[in-house]
Amino acid sequence: MRLTEEAARERLASVPVVHLATTDEDGRPHLVVTTFAVEGDHVYTAVDAKPKRTRDLKRLRNIRANPRVAVLADHYEDDWSRLWWVRADATAEILQDPAAMARPVALLSERYRQYRAAPPEGPVIALSVERWTGWAYQP
Amino acid sequence: MRLTEEAARERLASVPVVHLATTDEDGRPHLVVTTFAVEGDHVYTAVDAKPKRTRDLKRLRNIRANPRVAVLADHYEDDWSRLWWVRADATAEILQDPAAMARPVALLSERYRQYRAAPPEGPVIALSVERWTGWAYQP
Repeated sequence: MRLTEEAARERLASVPVVHLATTDEDGRPHLVVTTFAVEGDHVYTAVDAKPKRTRDLKRLRNIRANPRVAVLADHYEDDWSRLWWVRADATAEILQDPAAMARPVALLSERYRQYRAAPPEGPVIALSVERWTGWAYQP
Repeated sequence: MRLTEEAARERLASVPVVHLATTDEDGRPHLVVTTFAVEGDHVYTAVDAKPKRTRDLKRLRNIRANPRVAVLADHYEDDWSRLWWVRADATAEILQDPAAMARPVALLSERYRQYRAAPPEGPVIALSVERWTGWAYQP
Protein backbone atom coordinates (compact mmCIF):
# COMPACT_ATOMS: atom_id res chain seq x y z
CA MET A 1 0.00 0.00 0.00
CA ARG A 2 1.06 3.57 -0.68
CA LEU A 3 1.80 5.76 2.31
CA THR A 4 0.45 9.26 2.70
CA GLU A 5 2.98 12.06 2.66
CA GLU A 6 2.51 12.53 6.40
CA ALA A 7 3.02 8.83 7.14
CA ALA A 8 6.07 8.78 4.88
CA ARG A 9 7.65 11.70 6.74
CA GLU A 10 6.96 10.10 10.12
CA ARG A 11 8.47 6.78 9.12
CA LEU A 12 11.57 8.44 7.69
CA ALA A 13 12.11 10.22 11.00
CA SER A 14 11.92 6.88 12.86
CA VAL A 15 15.08 5.26 11.44
CA PRO A 16 18.63 5.85 12.67
CA VAL A 17 20.24 6.33 9.24
CA VAL A 18 19.14 7.00 5.66
CA HIS A 19 20.71 6.35 2.28
CA LEU A 20 21.59 9.32 0.10
CA ALA A 21 22.01 9.01 -3.66
CA THR A 22 23.73 11.69 -5.74
CA THR A 23 24.86 11.70 -9.36
CA ASP A 24 28.26 12.75 -10.68
CA GLU A 25 28.84 14.92 -13.73
CA ASP A 26 29.05 11.83 -15.94
CA GLY A 27 25.64 10.56 -14.78
CA ARG A 28 27.01 7.84 -12.51
CA PRO A 29 25.07 7.43 -9.27
CA HIS A 30 26.85 7.50 -5.91
CA LEU A 31 25.43 6.20 -2.68
CA VAL A 32 26.19 6.71 1.01
CA VAL A 33 24.58 5.82 4.33
CA THR A 34 24.34 8.77 6.67
CA THR A 35 23.02 10.11 9.94
CA PHE A 36 20.35 12.77 9.47
CA ALA A 37 17.69 14.96 11.02
CA VAL A 38 14.34 15.96 9.57
CA GLU A 39 12.27 19.10 10.15
CA GLY A 40 9.21 19.68 8.02
CA ASP A 41 10.21 19.24 4.39
CA HIS A 42 13.91 19.57 5.17
CA VAL A 43 16.35 16.74 5.74
CA TYR A 44 19.80 17.58 7.07
CA THR A 45 23.01 15.60 7.12
CA ALA A 46 26.51 16.77 7.97
CA VAL A 47 30.08 15.77 7.35
CA ASP A 48 31.29 14.51 10.69
CA ALA A 49 34.50 13.35 12.28
CA LYS A 50 34.22 9.61 11.61
CA PRO A 51 37.47 8.52 9.96
CA LYS A 52 37.61 9.68 6.33
CA ARG A 53 40.45 10.20 3.93
CA THR A 54 39.25 13.66 2.99
CA ARG A 55 36.56 16.23 3.71
CA ASP A 56 36.26 16.92 -0.04
CA LEU A 57 33.75 14.12 -0.27
CA LYS A 58 32.34 12.71 -3.50
CA ARG A 59 28.81 13.51 -2.27
CA LEU A 60 29.71 17.21 -1.97
CA ARG A 61 31.37 17.33 -5.38
CA ASN A 62 28.33 15.62 -6.93
CA ILE A 63 25.87 18.01 -5.29
CA ARG A 64 27.85 21.01 -6.56
CA ALA A 65 27.54 19.59 -10.09
CA ASN A 66 23.94 18.38 -9.74
CA PRO A 67 21.81 19.27 -6.71
CA ARG A 68 19.10 16.69 -7.40
CA VAL A 69 19.29 13.88 -4.86
CA ALA A 70 17.21 11.04 -3.44
CA VAL A 71 17.02 9.79 0.15
CA LEU A 72 15.65 6.42 1.21
CA ALA A 73 14.61 5.16 4.64
CA ASP A 74 13.50 1.57 4.93
CA HIS A 75 12.78 -1.30 7.24
CA TYR A 76 13.62 -4.94 6.57
CA GLU A 77 12.84 -8.06 8.48
CA ASP A 78 12.51 -11.70 7.63
CA ASP A 79 8.71 -11.39 7.89
CA TRP A 80 8.06 -9.57 4.63
CA SER A 81 4.62 -8.42 5.75
CA ARG A 82 6.54 -5.86 7.90
CA LEU A 83 8.53 -4.29 5.07
CA TRP A 84 8.29 -0.62 4.27
CA TRP A 85 10.27 2.14 2.57
CA VAL A 86 10.06 5.88 2.15
CA ARG A 87 11.80 7.92 -0.54
CA ALA A 88 12.31 11.67 -0.52
CA ASP A 89 13.20 13.33 -3.82
CA ALA A 90 14.98 16.54 -3.00
CA THR A 91 17.23 19.39 -4.03
CA ALA A 92 20.42 19.72 -2.02
CA GLU A 93 22.28 22.78 -0.85
CA ILE A 94 25.66 22.81 0.88
CA LEU A 95 25.89 25.00 3.99
CA GLN A 96 29.27 26.07 5.34
CA ASP A 97 28.42 29.29 7.12
CA PRO A 98 28.39 28.64 10.90
CA ALA A 99 25.14 30.58 11.38
CA ALA A 100 23.39 28.56 8.66
CA MET A 101 24.74 25.29 10.06
CA ALA A 102 23.70 25.99 13.66
CA ARG A 103 20.08 24.76 13.46
CA PRO A 104 20.86 21.56 11.49
CA VAL A 105 23.75 20.74 13.84
CA ALA A 106 21.47 21.27 16.85
CA LEU A 107 18.88 18.90 15.34
CA LEU A 108 21.56 16.30 14.64
CA SER A 109 22.90 16.61 18.17
CA GLU A 110 19.43 15.95 19.57
CA ARG A 111 19.29 12.66 17.67
CA TYR A 112 22.82 11.29 18.20
CA ARG A 113 24.62 11.30 21.53
CA GLN A 114 27.97 11.14 19.69
CA TYR A 115 27.25 14.57 18.22
CA ARG A 116 26.53 15.99 21.64
CA ALA A 117 30.09 15.08 22.62
CA ALA A 118 31.57 16.20 19.27
CA PRO A 119 29.27 18.20 16.99
CA PRO A 120 29.87 17.68 13.27
CA GLU A 121 32.10 20.39 11.87
CA GLY A 122 30.31 20.33 8.52
CA PRO A 123 29.68 21.19 5.80
CA VAL A 124 25.97 20.50 6.24
CA ILE A 125 23.93 19.16 3.34
CA ALA A 126 20.43 20.69 3.49
CA LEU A 127 17.81 18.90 1.41
CA SER A 128 14.54 20.53 0.39
CA VAL A 129 12.16 17.64 -0.22
CA GLU A 130 9.91 18.08 -3.26
CA ARG A 131 8.19 14.72 -3.11
CA TRP A 132 7.60 12.11 -0.42
CA THR A 133 6.85 8.59 -1.65
CA GLY A 134 6.31 5.58 0.55
CA TRP A 135 5.18 1.99 0.53
CA ALA A 136 4.37 -0.52 3.21
CA TYR A 137 3.49 -4.16 2.69
CA GLN A 138 0.59 -3.65 5.06
CA PRO A 139 -0.87 -0.66 6.97
CA MET B 1 39.93 1.79 7.69
CA ARG B 2 39.58 0.80 4.07
CA LEU B 3 38.45 -2.74 3.34
CA THR B 4 40.14 -4.98 0.82
CA GLU B 5 38.11 -5.98 -2.22
CA GLU B 6 37.74 -9.48 -0.81
CA ALA B 7 36.55 -8.23 2.58
CA ALA B 8 34.15 -5.82 0.87
CA ARG B 9 32.60 -8.63 -1.17
CA GLU B 10 32.23 -10.84 1.90
CA ARG B 11 30.55 -8.13 3.94
CA LEU B 12 28.14 -7.28 1.13
CA ALA B 13 27.08 -10.92 0.96
CA SER B 14 26.36 -10.92 4.72
CA VAL B 15 23.44 -8.46 4.72
CA PRO B 16 19.81 -9.29 3.90
CA VAL B 17 19.16 -6.35 1.56
CA VAL B 18 21.16 -3.76 -0.35
CA HIS B 19 20.39 -0.32 -1.71
CA LEU B 20 20.48 0.23 -5.46
CA ALA B 21 20.93 3.67 -7.00
CA THR B 22 20.17 4.37 -10.65
CA THR B 23 19.96 7.65 -12.58
CA ASP B 24 17.16 8.74 -14.89
CA GLU B 25 17.67 10.38 -18.25
CA ASP B 26 17.55 13.82 -16.66
CA GLY B 27 20.35 12.97 -14.24
CA ARG B 28 18.09 12.55 -11.20
CA PRO B 29 19.12 9.69 -8.90
CA HIS B 30 16.61 7.02 -7.88
CA LEU B 31 17.01 4.70 -4.94
CA VAL B 32 15.47 1.39 -3.90
CA VAL B 33 16.10 -1.25 -1.26
CA THR B 34 16.19 -4.75 -2.67
CA THR B 35 16.84 -8.42 -2.03
CA PHE B 36 19.91 -9.69 -3.90
CA ALA B 37 22.40 -12.49 -4.43
CA VAL B 38 26.12 -12.21 -5.15
CA GLU B 39 28.40 -14.54 -7.09
CA GLY B 40 31.95 -13.44 -7.83
CA ASP B 41 31.78 -9.96 -9.33
CA HIS B 42 28.09 -10.26 -10.15
CA VAL B 43 25.21 -9.01 -8.03
CA TYR B 44 21.69 -10.07 -8.99
CA THR B 45 18.31 -8.69 -8.04
CA ALA B 46 14.92 -9.49 -9.49
CA VAL B 47 11.50 -7.96 -9.78
CA ASP B 48 9.36 -10.05 -7.47
CA ALA B 49 5.71 -10.38 -6.54
CA LYS B 50 5.64 -8.02 -3.55
CA PRO B 51 2.76 -5.60 -4.12
CA LYS B 52 3.63 -3.05 -6.81
CA ARG B 53 1.55 -0.86 -9.04
CA THR B 54 3.41 -1.91 -12.16
CA ARG B 55 6.21 -4.16 -13.39
CA ASP B 56 7.49 -1.30 -15.60
CA LEU B 57 9.57 -0.10 -12.70
CA LYS B 58 11.50 3.15 -12.61
CA ARG B 59 14.71 1.22 -11.87
CA LEU B 60 14.30 -0.72 -15.14
CA ARG B 61 13.56 2.38 -17.19
CA ASN B 62 16.57 4.12 -15.67
CA ILE B 63 18.90 1.19 -16.40
CA ARG B 64 17.74 1.08 -20.02
CA ALA B 65 18.65 4.78 -20.32
CA ASN B 66 21.86 4.57 -18.26
CA PRO B 67 23.31 1.21 -17.15
CA ARG B 68 25.71 2.68 -14.59
CA VAL B 69 24.52 1.92 -11.07
CA ALA B 70 25.78 1.80 -7.49
CA VAL B 71 24.93 -0.69 -4.74
CA LEU B 72 25.50 -0.15 -1.03
CA ALA B 73 25.50 -2.62 1.84
CA ASP B 74 25.99 -1.27 5.32
CA HIS B 75 25.72 -1.93 9.01
CA TYR B 76 24.54 0.55 11.62
CA GLU B 77 24.38 0.34 15.35
CA ASP B 78 24.39 2.79 18.17
CA ASP B 79 28.01 1.87 18.95
CA TRP B 80 29.69 3.68 16.07
CA SER B 81 32.89 1.65 16.41
CA ARG B 82 30.89 -1.15 14.72
CA LEU B 83 29.88 0.79 11.62
CA TRP B 84 30.84 -0.36 8.16
CA TRP B 85 29.74 0.02 4.55
CA VAL B 86 30.57 -1.48 1.19
CA ARG B 87 29.85 0.07 -2.18
CA ALA B 88 29.87 -1.71 -5.53
CA ASP B 89 30.05 0.43 -8.67
CA ALA B 90 28.60 -1.60 -11.48
CA THR B 91 27.09 -1.80 -14.94
CA ALA B 92 23.59 -3.23 -15.08
CA GLU B 93 21.95 -5.48 -17.63
CA ILE B 94 18.29 -6.49 -17.69
CA LEU B 95 17.63 -10.19 -18.21
CA GLN B 96 14.21 -11.40 -19.33
CA ASP B 97 15.05 -14.64 -21.10
CA PRO B 98 14.08 -17.57 -18.82
CA ALA B 99 17.35 -19.39 -19.50
CA ALA B 100 19.41 -16.33 -18.56
CA MET B 101 17.31 -15.72 -15.45
CA ALA B 102 17.55 -19.30 -14.16
CA ARG B 103 20.88 -19.04 -12.35
CA PRO B 104 20.17 -15.67 -10.66
CA VAL B 105 16.71 -16.87 -9.59
CA ALA B 106 18.25 -20.05 -8.15
CA LEU B 107 20.77 -17.97 -6.17
CA LEU B 108 18.00 -15.69 -4.89
CA SER B 109 15.90 -18.69 -3.88
CA GLU B 110 18.80 -20.07 -1.85
CA ARG B 111 18.93 -16.85 0.15
CA TYR B 112 15.21 -16.13 0.72
CA ARG B 113 12.67 -18.74 1.78
CA GLN B 114 9.88 -16.60 0.29
CA TYR B 115 11.40 -17.12 -3.16
CA ARG B 116 11.46 -20.87 -2.67
CA ALA B 117 7.68 -20.75 -2.32
CA ALA B 118 7.22 -18.22 -5.13
CA PRO B 119 10.29 -17.57 -7.32
CA PRO B 120 10.53 -14.01 -8.68
CA GLU B 121 9.12 -13.81 -12.19
CA GLY B 122 11.64 -11.18 -13.22
CA PRO B 123 13.01 -9.36 -15.02
CA VAL B 124 16.38 -9.92 -13.35
CA ILE B 125 18.86 -7.05 -13.02
CA ALA B 126 22.38 -8.43 -13.42
CA LEU B 127 25.16 -6.15 -12.19
CA SER B 128 28.77 -6.53 -13.27
CA VAL B 129 30.80 -4.93 -10.50
CA GLU B 130 33.74 -2.86 -11.70
CA ARG B 131 34.87 -1.58 -8.34
CA TRP B 132 34.42 -2.69 -4.73
CA THR B 133 34.96 -0.01 -2.08
CA GLY B 134 34.52 -0.49 1.62
CA TRP B 135 35.10 1.13 4.97
CA ALA B 136 34.88 -0.07 8.54
CA TYR B 137 35.32 2.04 11.65
CA GLN B 138 37.60 -0.67 12.97
CA PRO B 139 38.92 -4.00 11.60
